[in-house]
Amino acid sequence: MAKFVVIGERLSTTAPAINRAFTNRDPEPILKRAKEQLDAGATYLDVNIGPAENDGPELMKWAVELLQGNFDNVPLALDTANKAAIEAGISVYNRSKGKPIVNSADAAGRIEYIDLAAANDAIVIALCNGEGIAKDNDERMMYCQTMLERGMEHGMEPTDMWFDPLFLVIKGMQDKQEQILECIKMISDMELNSTGGLSNNSNGMPKHIRPIMDSAMVAMAMQCGLTSAIVNPCDLRLMETIKSCDIIKNNTLYADSYLEL
Amino acid sequence: MAKFVVIGERLSTTAPAINRAFTNRDPEPILKRAKEQLDAGATYLDVNIGPAENDGPELMKWAVELLQGNFDNVPLALDTANKAAIEAGISVYNRSKGKPIVNSADAAGRIEYIDLAAANDAIVIALCNGEGIAKDNDERMMYCQTMLERGMEHGMEPTDMWFDPLFLVIKGMQDKQEQILECIKMISDMELNSTGGLSNNSNGMPKHIRPIMDSAMVAMAMQCGLTSAIVNPCDLRLMETIKSCDIIKNNTLYADSYLEL
Repeated sequence: MAKFVVIGERLSTTAPAINRAFTNRDPEPILKRAKEQLDAGATYLDVNIGPAENDGPELMKWAVELLQGNFDNVPLALDTANKAAIEAGISVYNRSKGKPIVNSADAAGRIEYIDLAAANDAIVIALCNGEGIAKDNDERMMYCQTMLERGMEHGMEPTDMWFDPLFLVIKGMQDKQEQILECIKMISDMELNSTGGLSNNSNGMPKHIRPIMDSAMVAMAMQCGLTSAIVNPCDLRLMETIKSCDIIKNNTLYADSYLEL
Repeated sequence: MAKFVVIGERLSTTAPAINRAFTNRDPEPILKRAKEQLDAGATYLDVNIGPAENDGPELMKWAVELLQGNFDNVPLALDTANKAAIEAGISVYNRSKGKPIVNSADAAGRIEYIDLAAANDAIVIALCNGEGIAKDNDERMMYCQTMLERGMEHGMEPTDMWFDPLFLVIKGMQDKQEQILECIKMISDMELNSTGGLSNNSNGMPKHIRPIMDSAMVAMAMQCGLTSAIVNPCDLRLMETIKSCDIIKNNTLYADSYLEL
């Protein structure tokens, strides 16, 4: 099996400092945060420019060129509701370190993001979601099937669709967690890839608990076959756990120094 | 599902200070280490008196009465190759907090420990092992079946047999780890309980790595259905992980204070 893919989530307009830096085309805060995530072990960086309704294409091009130019063509996930911005980003994207990821499609209003990924030979994150949150795994897997067919009709490799079961918050939906893990197992049993915003599970928990809960969740999810996650790679405990699970799953070879690699 | 059962492993003749205390019937080091483990969240305490060929029965009686007398009838796992010592321990054992655990039977030379547990209405740890280490899960499950039948012939409840897949050391047997996890899943799918000396997986690793690797392993094993483990409960990271997995599995109800409970 391949090594788990960590997608760094910290270049996002939801962070005020990054939002300002995107708006002002100020490279420094963006490069600093990109470096932190890469140093901590991220493989991909997510570039979330928000809705970016006006200047999306120009902003995404700028961000892709800035990041790939400074970090040896680091592979990126292009994250925005503005389709033209994703296309613009891909037009300047260098694939030498990995295909671009389109973040994200779903089985309802965002299904055309699959077509976009197919047309551009990109990976797509496919949320197992229609209108509103799926009520059970029958519904999740129905959405998965819908998106899989759509992608394959457009000539995508099934493994380029990374299905996201949508992690649910434990505080309020504790009894649904096993369902999400089972959904990951079902996706894995179909030999498909999976990903997700894993830390959503610990939303609302005290700050000191979140790395502990997220680590437990990622290990359980990796045992179910999760192949990637969109996370904060600067969470040391989480990264240690991911690296250890990769050893246990025999995805990477054990060495006493494996945590530093 | 029931909460994960932590069996504290630190009262063992393999520790020189505990060995001396058993030999000299010196309560203080034993009570100190028992208290540490209970404070850290152990449910059961393992009492490993070694082969105890001469004075086993008298020593085990002394240890059971000492521990149960001082810690409100704490439930115990009686761990020795001396069958008479286990029987003597059970003869003075108070069951108000849980049945005694016989540690351990296997499918070869120690199969009679199952009969002993059955005759005494005890739980038994049943190693999925014959002569030497099982080569694959077919062999492990054959031993499991042999022991299950033996116990049921003697009137045991299947859930009173806690099957131990025998965790293997990663350094040297990295490619066997998924097999052990799969074995736990097979035991769980039969609705049987499981346990094991989990930290064996990290044997020989640098000291700072072991809690990290053990935590990753316990979370993956709990996802596969592991119901108990024989561990060092004073490993804080491991206990935090076990408690978090119990939350994710909905075995215990989430509260912001769950790590302190």
